[in-house]
Amino acid sequence: MPVNLPLPVATELLPVKGVRLGTAEAGIRKANRRDLTLVELAPGSRAAGVFTQNRFCAAPVQVCKAHLETAETRALVINTGIANAGTGEQGVANARASCRAVAQALGVPAEAVLPFSTGVILEHLPVDRLSAGVPAAQAALKADGWFEACHAIMTTDTQPKCASRQIQIDGQTITLTGMSKGAGMIRPNMATMLGFLATDAKVSQSLLQSLVREAADLSFNSITVDGDTSTNDSFILIATGQVGSEISELSSAAGQTLRKAVIELSQWLAQAIVRDGEGATKFMSIAVAGGKDLQECRKVAYAVAHSPLVKTAFFASDPNLGRILAAIGYAGVDDLDVDGIRVWLAGGGEEVLVAEKGGRAVSYVEEAGACIMKNAEITVRIDLARGAAATTVWTCDFSYDYVKINADYRS
Amino acid sequence: MPVNLPLPVATELLPVKGVRLGTAEAGIRKANRRDLTLVELAPGSRAAGVFTQNRFCAAPVQVCKAHLETAETRALVINTGIANAGTGEQGVANARASCRAVAQALGVPAEAVLPFSTGVILEHLPVDRLSAGVPAAQAALKADGWFEACHAIMTTDTQPKCASRQIQIDGQTITLTGMSKGAGMIRPNMATMLGFLATDAKVSQSLLQSLVREAADLSFNSITVDGDTSTNDSFILIATGQVGSEISELSSAAGQTLRKAVIELSQWLAQAIVRDGEGATKFMSIAVAGGKDLQECRKVAYAVAHSPLVKTAFFASDPNLGRILAAIGYAGVDDLDVDGIRVWLAGGGEEVLVAEKGGRAVSYVEEAGACIMKNAEITVRIDLARGAAATTVWTCDFSYDYVKINADYRS
Repeated sequence: MPVNLPLPVATELLPVKGVRLGTAEAGIRKANRRDLTLVELAPGSRAAGVFTQNRFCAAPVQVCKAHLETAETRALVINTGIANAGTGEQGVANARASCRAVAQALGVPAEAVLPFSTGVILEHLPVDRLSAGVPAAQAALKADGWFEACHAIMTTDTQPKCASRQIQIDGQTITLTGMSKGAGMIRPNMATMLGFLATDAKVSQSLLQSLVREAADLSFNSITVDGDTSTNDSFILIATGQVGSEISELSSAAGQTLRKAVIELSQWLAQAIVRDGEGATKFMSIAVAGGKDLQECRKVAYAVAHSPLVKTAFFASDPNLGRILAAIGYAGVDDLDVDGIRVWLAGGGEEVLVAEKGGRAVSYVEEAGACIMKNAEITVRIDLARGAAATTVWTCDFSYDYVKINADYRS
Repeated sequence: MPVNLPLPVATELLPVKGVRLGTAEAGIRKANRRDLTLVELAPGSRAAGVFTQNRFCAAPVQVCKAHLETAETRALVINTGIANAGTGEQGVANARASCRAVAQALGVPAEAVLPFSTGVILEHLPVDRLSAGVPAAQAALKADGWFEACHAIMTTDTQPKCASRQIQIDGQTITLTGMSKGAGMIRPNMATMLGFLATDAKVSQSLLQSLVREAADLSFNSITVDGDTSTNDSFILIATGQVGSEISELSSAAGQTLRKAVIELSQWLAQAIVRDGEGATKFMSIAVAGGKDLQECRKVAYAVAHSPLVKTAFFASDPNLGRILAAIGYAGVDDLDVDGIRVWLAGGGEEVLVAEKGGRAVSYVEEAGACIMKNAEITVRIDLARGAAATTVWTCDFSYDYVKINADYRS
């Protein structure tokens, strides 16, 4: 059961002018499932992306990066079933071939198509079946296709993840709709976190590029389920330019309004992945402040968020202070003065100081911590008391079901 | 059930001349259990240690470090039940007081006593009860006390860990006996990995210091159960100087013989902790070769060893190549050429090349991998093909029982 993750409602997913989506059953790996999604973008659309840092970078990621650099983007093609990762030169050729199939159908250059794959690693993409499915996906293209699309890109997700926002810029209504998928950072076969966010605003390429980077850092790059980074992770920000005049300055009122909406929706999409994390029963925010720089805040936040001992303690609703302090202590911040650190637990509207001066806070009684730990959403707030940097990382707990899901043989 | 970890046999644990050990029930946290161990060392003994890098370094570790620098070492006092970690200034005072109690009983300076604590974090050490137990432990001192001692230092270990070796140096028989404890790197309450290794050889202080550092790096610093580093981890190497003439040069024949024995026994003691790892059903060696330097070999080995997805796959006996490759890919070796990497799985006397050229090896059939994964001891061998550095890290798999053990509320 995902933690506080609402199911998408078709009528609440708002079309983005210039975007049409269609899905089809291409039989990529299994029959009778919608495993092919086509996203068509109006002429003049711009796209920017951030991708996995994994050295085993999947073929579609390589092709995506190259296509983003060489041409305008007119379509996305997304398949589930096979990740086309660890597939060498043949994999790259297959990713290119799937772009060509879409390009021919839509009458655009092959470089205008971005490919995304998620599914089994180390198996080759059946380009013939994918290509044969393109006409059906094309015939299904519609502006309100987000609801079907967010279902079709799922692999081991227990539910689809899709949401919309609207903002006003210069008297115009701008729409943003995004969808994401992913449950563990990588699955035995079902790899990959994918995120797509489209707006009908007109955004300069350079602003779009800086927005996708900042939004990714504050969202998809600030979550962890199990610390594993997939070979296929991709986040794409699209601006179709159908509404309003061009926004090119981040510092302008329009730029700030757009930035806020993009970050918020990105965070919602990223947090949705954590809420649907494999075996998750708790949604945890690790908020670190008072750091000398962002990097040490992230080190501490991720040390806590990745600790199997902290994660199992949260599963058990155990306010296990020792595990949290130990994780902070081994985060790799060399000159950390543990006597200055304070730690709070918060949840259900309550917040309790649990640690200070290198140990348990004098005022802390374990019943108060235990009470907070019963909530489904808990924040660990850490003040390093040595600077002004801050960051927040989101994760989930570690349950029997995580082991069960990941120990099951590939099916 | 520990993985291939023989129970210590009392008659196989050899006394080390100059070392006597005694245990007692001090009632540190619970009644009716031997929770206090005293180790008495003959005059002229030398000791050297390596300790946790955790910034939340426990009080006994702080006192140990200070005492090692200021005086000869004549005794160790080890208690279970309470770790005396996260206890601030009072904790340091308590650790010093326990040293004084032992010092008075043995007629040695307080600085000649090294304290070690393992157990519940964030609770204060009951110094009165510990001190009251010292006479009984002193009365029990005997040269063949290793068998009782290795039982008395256990916390959540499912079985004691102790072993002996003998070597010949210049016609003299040198004995080495060591014991260790630890099951997870840190437990909710039952914290700490401890290792003690004593020899009756006469070893110069500088050689002892370099030996303990090298042996720790190749043993206790090359294992991981869950990636969590305790606040109390300590490894102490003792040379009582009762047998033979002084060994001061590592490059001498005597130095090399001693070095080999110290490293081998340290590795046995460290691997014993992994074999008894919380919920372990498999013993995994991650052997990385062909690196540019040791650091990148360790990065890759630990990325594989820490990956919850790799560990759950091993629990499931699933030769999940994609997870191993992905872990190598995100290990943080920036310019890694994945096309050059080769990966083998080995076990039960068989070895199979599973990956090369960025993907599955052409010769690999999954049945061969599946066959190897059925063994209780498995090696993942990785060749980075870019240099001459190599290292091996040992770990265990990740089972339902790991979550069960660590999600149980502190008992």
